[in-house]
This record gives sequence, structure tokens and C-alpha cells, in this order.
Amino acid sequence: MPDNINNSRAVFFVSDSTGITVETLGHSLLSQFNTVEFISFSLRFIDTEVKAIEAQQTINKVADETHHPPLVFCTLIRPELRKILSDSKGLFFDVLNTFLKPIEDEIGLKAKHDIGRAHGILDDQEYADRISAVSYSLKTDDGSHAKIYDDADVIITGVSRTGKTATCLYLALHYGLNAANYPLVEEDLEGEGLPKTLKQYKNKVIGFNISPERLSLVRQKRRPDSDYSSLSRCRFETRQAESMFSRDQIPLLDVSSMSIEEIASTIVSMLSLTPRTYVP
Amino acid sequence: MPDNINNSRAVFFVSDSTGITVETLGHSLLSQFNTVEFISFSLRFIDTEVKAIEAQQTINKVADETHHPPLVFCTLIRPELRKILSDSKGLFFDVLNTFLKPIEDEIGLKAKHDIGRAHGILDDQEYADRISAVSYSLKTDDGSHAKIYDDADVIITGVSRTGKTATCLYLALHYGLNAANYPLVEEDLEGEGLPKTLKQYKNKVIGFNISPERLSLVRQKRRPDSDYSSLSRCRFETRQAESMFSRDQIPLLDVSSMSIEEIASTIVSMLSLTPRTYVP
Repeated sequence: MPDNINNSRAVFFVSDSTGITVETLGHSLLSQFNTVEFISFSLRFIDTEVKAIEAQQTINKVADETHHPPLVFCTLIRPELRKILSDSKGLFFDVLNTFLKPIEDEIGLKAKHDIGRAHGILDDQEYADRISAVSYSLKTDDGSHAKIYDDADVIITGVSRTGKTATCLYLALHYGLNAANYPLVEEDLEGEGLPKTLKQYKNKVIGFNISPERLSLVRQKRRPDSDYSSLSRCRFETRQAESMFSRDQIPLLDVSSMSIEEIASTIVSMLSLTPRTYVP
Repeated sequence: MPDNINNSRAVFFVSDSTGITVETLGHSLLSQFNTVEFISFSLRFIDTEVKAIEAQQTINKVADETHHPPLVFCTLIRPELRKILSDSKGLFFDVLNTFLKPIEDEIGLKAKHDIGRAHGILDDQEYADRISAVSYSLKTDDGSHAKIYDDADVIITGVSRTGKTATCLYLALHYGLNAANYPLVEEDLEGEGLPKTLKQYKNKVIGFNISPERLSLVRQKRRPDSDYSSLSRCRFETRQAESMFSRDQIPLLDVSSMSIEEIASTIVSMLSLTPRTYVP
């Protein structure tokens, strides 16, 4: 336990499966309180009474040590396991069950109340789509295999170190989309317009740009004190890229202060792409 | 609208940002009702009154056409926008706000009630960790660069087409973990034990196995009617892999019926790995 636990608050995320739902929701809720330091613990795969009792004991111990009830966000679906957690010394949030009753009433059906495998149900087609999109991204990473751009759902372009590769992989894993990326190199930046390779796919190209200050910071980590990471070089490259995108009417996304998932989700919206898989 | 909309139910996921939270929670809730067909619509980046009114109108239109109130899961944080959606003809679920009041009461602080960027806050260190983990995964994909296995948090091994690459990338993107993968080829499978490359890293190796039937199915898509995808070949390979893992006491994960995120989350639990980033 850190010393400052009294100025902060312990949080438990308890689930009977991967914890993805409870951690995602909990994280959103906590981000609404930015002056508190939350210290979070994930208790995943709590699917037996023994594990539930252990979880309760852990929560009680932290409650005693910190003299404050931890926040307990819980997606346990089996009532008898949930009861064990709600009897802990924490402040209990019944994430799924809160909403299940009104849904049951509206659609006139009972919920399964069965261990949640919301993120673990294997859908063969979805699995195949994601795997195929991942290999497409790997194959077309960094400008390679432009021959298969016909199969791309989106082609991301931009200067080096704008997060193109990670975004493509996220788009593949989460949305099953074929995302290629084409890096703008010196030759492209000094050219007269969009690189020839991209011209015929203009309707599915998106350009990343970034503030030169942030780009320089990111590049410093890769090659410190180089021309590549100098502010003047970064200024030149981002200015050239931006005017290329605007001249060729390529939709531009400023990724300077965006996380990878926000960038990916924005691309899906901007280009009105239809995800092949449903994996938020 | 599909014809069978009366036997199914329309669902709206409404958010002022990426929609990750609301879609994740909604998906978990709906997975508890497996006899209903849900037809879902994502309305993301609803951050102005104009967009909220448009969203309300879309929901009302679907309500009128289907003669059933759509389920509306909403994470809008600004009260005036939320009001517009709760006034729609849908059955409204106030996902975040339901839990904010009790948290406020417990910690004695008001929530920001500010547009949620839970998945959009750029944390420089987290961004750098994820990008670095992604490039580690790419570099060590398919058994390459075993020289840098010292830096691995986990090394996944298994026969071809068990989902090793996608899992490594998921571990990198979500948990910031350095995940390498080493494919077991014919030579390894006919050998006397764990491949030499893996022996010294035994404590961070995990073995994937899969049912021969499923493996054959997955391989069929890649190379139909080949020896590689034949059931007898798949039986041989999975049997050899399994006995290798058991002989060398390598933790074994049967991925036959698991989704990528479930596999990743299970690895984190099994090997007690400490994620570098917090991105559920």
C-alpha cells in the first residue's frame, strides 16, 4: 500500500471473466474525478465461491488498512457470488445487474444470469475476419505491398512516427478492417502532390498530422539529438504533409493529443467505415 | 430495416466520444439475452445539441417503424445533451450518471460532468509504452529476433495458426507488454523437448494448443485441401505440442474456443504479468 492511501482511494474491479467490461466502465467513471488518485486492483475470473470469498477478504483488508471503503465495481453475474462481494466493506456498484431488470421488463424475457463471456464467445467468422485483417495490416505495413491496396478499407498516410502502424493494428483487431499505412518520406514531401501510389486510392486515404513539438518529442525517444528529431526538421515535414493533404483534399486527422483507440474510432466515423466485427 | 424487426430489437449506443465504454457495457448486457436478435446502431461523438437532436430523431424514427422502443444505452455526460436523448421514444439507460452520484457522495467530490475522454486522454508514457511494445511484437513475430527475448514479458509458442501473432499484438496494444511469438515447426515437433531457443526463457513461455478439428478448419481457409490443413496432420502436431509442453512443464492454454481478448486477459492472469498501461 502506498503511504498516501488516505489522500487517494482504492478501487476494485471484480469480474467473473476477462474484466474488460468492468474495467472499461470503471475507468470512464473515475476519469470524471481528476483530483483524486485512484489505486486500482483488478480481480478477474472470480467464478467460484472460494475465489469470491478471497476477493471479499482482500477488499476488507484494504478497507481496514486505509480506513476508507474501497470502490468496488462488479460485473459478477451469478447472484450468490455477487452477494459475497456486496457484503464486503467496500462501496458496491452492481454494474450489470442494475440494468438487467429494466431490460428484462421491456423485452419480456429473463436474462441468463450465466457467467459472462461477452468478450469470450468465439464467433468463427469474426475470429477469421480479425486474423485476416491483422495479416493484411502486417503485410502492408510501412508502405509495402501497395499492390494489394484494392483490398484496403483505409490507407493511412503521414510522416514517420505519427502512430500509423499501431492505429492500423488496432483497426484490424477491433473492427476487422483492412488498414494499410504508407509513410511519407523525403521524396514524397518534396514532390508535387500526393505520391503516385496513393493517387488512385484517394477516396480511402486519410492523412495523419501532428504538432511539430510533439513529433520532435516522440522522435527524440527513437533517435536523440538527430536531424530526424530536430524541431526544424519536424516543422518542415509536418508543414509539407499538411499542404499536400489540403491540396489533394485528403481528410486530415490531427493526432497530436489523441490515444490510439480514439484515433481508430475517429477514422471509422470520418470515413463512415463499416466494421466487420463488433469488438468495442 | 430488416423485415424481422418485430422479432428483434433495435439498440442504440450513444456517446460523446469513441463509444468504447457504452458499446462494451451494452454488449455485455445484451449477451445475457441470447434468444433475441439485437440490431445495433452506434452514434459516436454526439457532442453538440444539434447532433443530440438528430440522434433523438433517428431513435424516434426507428421506434415508430418497429413499434417497439429501442434500447438506448447512453454515456453522454453533459446533462443538457443527455436530456435530449432521455426524451426520445427509446428506453433510456443512463450508463455513467447512474453511478456518478454514489461515487460523489462517497468521496465527497463533484464529478467534472465534462465530455468523457476516458479513452482519449493522451498519456505520453502510456503512448510510448504501447508503441514500443507494438514494435517489439512486430520485430519478434514468427520466431524472429530471438536475440531480444531478454526483453520479453511473455513468449507465446504453439503450432501454426493458433492465433499467436494477433494475441501478441493485443497484449502490446492493450497492456503495453512485450510479447514475442515462436512457432513450432516440424523440426521442433519431432525433437526431444522444448526448442533450444526457448529453453533458457522457460519461465516466461506459454504454450497454445487447440483442438485438431478447429485447427484443421482454420488452416483450410489458408490452404484448402493440403497436407498442412488435413485432420491427420493437425492431430499429429497438436499431440506433439501438448506432450512437449507437459514434459517441459510449460503452462498450456487451450485456445480452441477463446476470443483474442479472452486469451490475452487469461495470459496476464496465468503468468501474473503486470500491465504497463491501463487500457482495458
